[in-house]
Order: sequence, then C-alpha cells, then structure tokens
Amino acid sequence: MSSVTTAGKGLLLKADPIAAAFRDEVQTTLATQTQSIQRQPKLVGILSTSSGPSRTYAEFTKKQCESLGFEFVLKETGAALNSTGEKGSEGLGDGEGVEEAIMEANEDESVDGIMVYFPIFGPQQDHYLQQIVSPYKDVEGLHVKFHYNLYHNIRFISPSSLSSPTSGIAGDEVQNDSIPPAGTVKSILPCTPLAIVKSLEYVGVYNKILPYGDRAYGKTVVVVNRSEVVGRPLAALLANDGARVFSVDIDSIQEYTKRPSSDTPSSARNYHPKHVVRPPPTPYTTLQSCLEIADVVISAVPSATYKIPTRWLKDGCVCVNVAAEKNFEKDVRDKASLYIPAVGKVTILMLLRNLLRLQQYKTIQSPPPSAQSPASGEPSGQ
Amino acid sequence: MSSVTTAGKGLLLKADPIAAAFRDEVQTTLATQTQSIQRQPKLVGILSTSSGPSRTYAEFTKKQCESLGFEFVLKETGAALNSTGEKGSEGLGDGEGVEEAIMEANEDESVDGIMVYFPIFGPQQDHYLQQIVSPYKDVEGLHVKFHYNLYHNIRFISPSSLSSPTSGIAGDEVQNDSIPPAGTVKSILPCTPLAIVKSLEYVGVYNKILPYGDRAYGKTVVVVNRSEVVGRPLAALLANDGARVFSVDIDSIQEYTKRPSSDTPSSARNYHPKHVVRPPPTPYTTLQSCLEIADVVISAVPSATYKIPTRWLKDGCVCVNVAAEKNFEKDVRDKASLYIPAVGKVTILMLLRNLLRLQQYKTIQSPPPSAQSPASGEPSGQ
Repeated sequence: MSSVTTAGKGLLLKADPIAAAFRDEVQTTLATQTQSIQRQPKLVGILSTSSGPSRTYAEFTKKQCESLGFEFVLKETGAALNSTGEKGSEGLGDGEGVEEAIMEANEDESVDGIMVYFPIFGPQQDHYLQQIVSPYKDVEGLHVKFHYNLYHNIRFISPSSLSSPTSGIAGDEVQNDSIPPAGTVKSILPCTPLAIVKSLEYVGVYNKILPYGDRAYGKTVVVVNRSEVVGRPLAALLANDGARVFSVDIDSIQEYTKRPSSDTPSSARNYHPKHVVRPPPTPYTTLQSCLEIADVVISAVPSATYKIPTRWLKDGCVCVNVAAEKNFEKDVRDKASLYIPAVGKVTILMLLRNLLRLQQYKTIQSPPPSAQSPASGEPSGQ
Repeated sequence: MSSVTTAGKGLLLKADPIAAAFRDEVQTTLATQTQSIQRQPKLVGILSTSSGPSRTYAEFTKKQCESLGFEFVLKETGAALNSTGEKGSEGLGDGEGVEEAIMEANEDESVDGIMVYFPIFGPQQDHYLQQIVSPYKDVEGLHVKFHYNLYHNIRFISPSSLSSPTSGIAGDEVQNDSIPPAGTVKSILPCTPLAIVKSLEYVGVYNKILPYGDRAYGKTVVVVNRSEVVGRPLAALLANDGARVFSVDIDSIQEYTKRPSSDTPSSARNYHPKHVVRPPPTPYTTLQSCLEIADVVISAVPSATYKIPTRWLKDGCVCVNVAAEKNFEKDVRDKASLYIPAVGKVTILMLLRNLLRLQQYKTIQSPPPSAQSPASGEPSGQ
C-alpha cells in the first residue's frame, strides 16, 4: 500500500486503508437498506461560516456521499453565502440562519441526517446548537443522550428511547457483548472519537483475543484535549474498553480507567462497570511524565503552534494526529512505531454508518409503554 | 429604605426591596399550592466542589428556602466532602459524583427541583451536566428546551411538551400577551437573567405604559458577557422585550434587536417577532462607543480585575453588577443615576418561583395526543 512507507523510521499510515474496510461495510448496508426502505438516505450539511476549512470539509462530505450513493444537500446560510454573490447575501455574519436551517431539517421528513460545520460561535453556543438537532438525525452523535450513554458505558438502547427527553438517562446496565440484546439497538457514538477507536483497532492497539469491552486492557493512552466533542468522549470510550487513559488539557491532567486505583489491593481483573475519573497518581502530573509510559498518544489541539516534543515520546509508541493542524513534530517517526497523520476519511464513514443506523431506527416500531420505560409517541412521528 | 442612599451621587440600590415583592408572591403561591398538592416543595442542592463561594451560595439557598417554607436538602459530593471529615472523603476531586447525584434526584419522586452549584469542570462539561437535569426539575432554567423558547420568544408552552425530546423546539408562534392561552403555561426562564429583568422592571427601565412584550422599547442596553448561562439569554430577553442591546464579549460586539436595521426605510414600530442578531453598525464597534449611548449597563464578568471605566459611562445611566466580583469602579455613582451592586437575592426568588411552577406543571394532565404536538407519557411518570 502506498500509504505505508518506511525509511528507517516508524510507519506512516494514512487513513485510506482503514477507511477502505468501512467503505465496504457502508456500501453493503446501504444496498440492502435502500432496498427495504425504498429511498436513498439523505444527509443535509449546514454551512454557515466563511471558514475555508469548513467549506473544504463540506465539499469532501459531498464527494464521499455521492461516491457511495448517499444523497447530500448542502444548505448554505449566513457568511457562507457571502462568496456566492447571491442577492442580499452581502455582509451576512457567521452563523446567521444556522438555527433556522437546523429546525427546518429537523422537521423535513425527507432528511435522514444533519451535519453542522463547526466551529461557528464558540464552544458554548455551538453546544447549544448541537442539542437542538433531533437525536433521530444526529449523525455526528453530539446530542447529550448519546454522550450520556457513552460516558456510562451504556452500549445498547431501545430505539423508542430517542423520543424520550431523558432517554438513556436512566438505568445503568452495562453490557459487555457486541450483539445488542433483543429489542435494543446500538447507541450512536460521536463520529470523531469513534473513528479514532476504529483506527486503533485497525493497527492492533485493540487486542481481539481479549473479551469484547476490554480489548484495550493493558494499554496506556495519552489524549491531549478534553473538549466535549473529541477529547472527553474519546478518553471515556478508551477507558470503558479497558485502557488506562491520561486526559491532558491546558490546565489539568486526569486519569480515566475502569481499574481500581493502585493502592487498592484488588486483582487486576477486578474493575468498575464503567470508567472512573481520578487525579493522576504521582509522578503522572505532567504531560512529559505521562508520555514516558504512553503506548498511544492522541492529540487534538486546534493550534498551529502546539507541538508534542518527539523527545518526550516513549520509543515505539503509536501517535495519532486528530487536529487539522499538525500537533506532532516532523521527526515524530524517529520515536513512534506508527504515525497516523489524520483520521478525517474514517470519520466521514462513521458518520455515514450512523446515518444508516438512524434511518433504520426510525423504522423500528416502538414497543407499547411498559413499566420499565416511559415510552412516548412513535419515533416515525419525528 | 436603608438600602437606598444618596450623597450627591447616584442611588445605591441593594436587592432587598426588589426581592421583597417576590417574597410575598412566592409565599402566597406556596401557601395555596401546598394546600392543593398536600406536600411541601422540595429542592435539592448539589454541591460538588471545595469552592468557598459555592458553599456560601448553598448556605444562602438553604436559609432562604427555610425562611420561606420550602424543604431544602443539600447533597454534598466530591471535593465538597473533603472538609466534612467524613470517612473515605479525603482527596475526592471537584465534581466527583455530581452526575450520579443529578440522576438520583431526577429519579426521586419526592424531589421537585434540582440546583447544581457551578462552576465545576468548566463551561463545556458544565453545559453537559445542565442538559441531564430533568426539564421537570430544572429550576435554574438551564435546559436547552427553555433556552430555545427564550431565544425564539416563545413564552407559553404545553406542560406535556416538557416530556418530548424536541419540545418547544418546533413552532414559532410569538404571543405578545402576559396571560398564557388555554392549555398552556409560561415557559421557564433562566433565573439569573430573569432576576436582572425583574430588577430593571423595578427601577422603571421597563415602561408599564407600553404594551406587554415591548416595554423596554427605546432603551439602549450594554450587556458585558455572552455566556450561555447569563449574557446571551439576557441580551435575547431584553431585545425580545423591545430594547436595543449591545452584547459585548471578549472578542466581539453584537447588536440584538427586534427593530429593522437603520438603513431599512420602515417605521419604528415595524419589528421582527423575535430579536435578530447583527454586527454593530458604525461607530458601535467598541465597548467605549456603545457605553456612550447606553441607558443601562449590565456586567457579568467573572474576574476580580475587570472594571468598566466610569469615565466611559453615559451620565445618568443605570448600572447593574451581576458578577460575584465588582465589575464597576468605586466611583461608578459619579456617573450612574442608579447602581445595583448584586442581584443574588432576586435570583433565588426567581428560582423558587420556577420551582413552584414546575411542581404545578407536573400535576397538569397532558392532553391526548393530537396532530399538533407529539405528546408523550404522563409528565407525572417522570
């Protein structure tokens, strides 16, 4: 594969071969599902800023969708219209009309998925926008319902729970099996963290010999960034899968793990049903000391100047760059055994996989109201 | 009133007389409601940090609740337990157990309202926590459902919509009347912005001669801070009530208004059903230039060093400090006709008013499912 090169250095692994496996899966599912649902799934992308990278990403989404057989409609609003020369579009601001565009797509029954190109206003107001996207169309997996399930290691949900206000947000049953129990489906995972996990599976960081739900056991991972969109859900996913994770942000380091703390005299297999978050034990209170023992280093810092010093890396570690900018130094492969410079091509496939799942979940009849869950109207009424 | 003093300067108005009117209202409603519901309303406060100001605020809440006849239970978790000397509480971190405490209170049928003492983790993760509080118990009004209604000037809701995932998040009917139409109740407003509006009503910034929904017409307001908890909802509330608002944040200024832009040849009464957000017209691109024309200045900057220069204020303006720190200089009353140094005492009454309303909304039977709204299970099933 041309994407893998060696020259006395660690491997450079571009995302293409990782994406290829999921392209096949998505195409197969799309073919059978389109036959049964009799309609091509439709994704609406909402671009509301003049940001160059966002437009590039929107064009990339369109290309990917069309090459795979999904319908993609780009809805431009606000400052995204400035460059189009459309009448009355002069001087529109970033984010103008984005909320209206989301609501319209929520209510349009022909729309199966909604993707909003962030950042728009900043973390707080963008988080508000993420919550008003209908969970039935939230292909990015950014709704609090899905985050709650992720943080609590709740892997399967009742499809009808998507129409309840506190769905998933009740019950704490953890299921360590890869097949959803009867009447349930897989919860939706945020697509960037999921793409990173799938990339780590591909390169063998996840050990398939270990039982499902614990396949990252034994691995120490450093995740640099603790945003609600990437860093925190990623740290939780990895820890729920058995890894010991150091979550590093600008002002603190936290340890995410399912295992009991080192001063507890329990066996190594005796673990919590979901990850717990602790302050890091001595000496892991600095990025440098965490990197010394890290098997995997994932960085998602949106800054052109931020670089993880190669000299701090453990020899032979796996490095993954998630930011649009390069967070690793040019010589990263002097230390890293494997370097993945970008995961965007996998992310888009995770998004389309989520889209197919959500389209399917809408068609599943909700069970009659039972004592167990306060079921509400038909999901198809959405 | 001892809280009002003059000495050749503007008035210093402490919150007590403003709070007094609402104390009476809350006590009257409490008396009749307790009689019909046969149970004292119960508020749970969740304190999960070692922050001194948060504990002080929790103690203040307790005192206020008890003096008014509400049950208040303080649930301490995480670092809040460090100082209690409770066994096993040593070394707990800020925010440990807060999510579990919220879920427990959500599910406890004896709990009518939940108040979480922020900040805990930072804006993003705190926003996540705000969304997992059941809307039926969200006395602080921080759920996206309520923010959506506020931003869209949707003042009345069907009580059953609280159990729908996209409630309020559909339909855009704006009602300029203070009395809820049949079958609807008032939406819940976030208590800090609401307390500020009530304070401005008290001091006559709102003109009662004008029609409901437009009583701040003619007033220019500067709001310094654009967080999702205080600044942005406040700017929207004021603009929806007719004011021209300059929303000032660290990196930008925006104009919030219902009125058409100055270059539109429409009459002054011809306004949008809800506020629109625009970049500020020249010359209002700096705080100083906005302050030159501001009738009201509200500041909520959580910083001990941030001060609005008195020399920039318009002579005779009304100044309101919302931050725990003093955002105005000592000589603010050399320019301000009126200075309100804090609104906390009003905020807590708004919170208790919300608590009473939510307790009542739970008891209202939801109407049978209709074409209009996808009604779900009984709210009392919450």
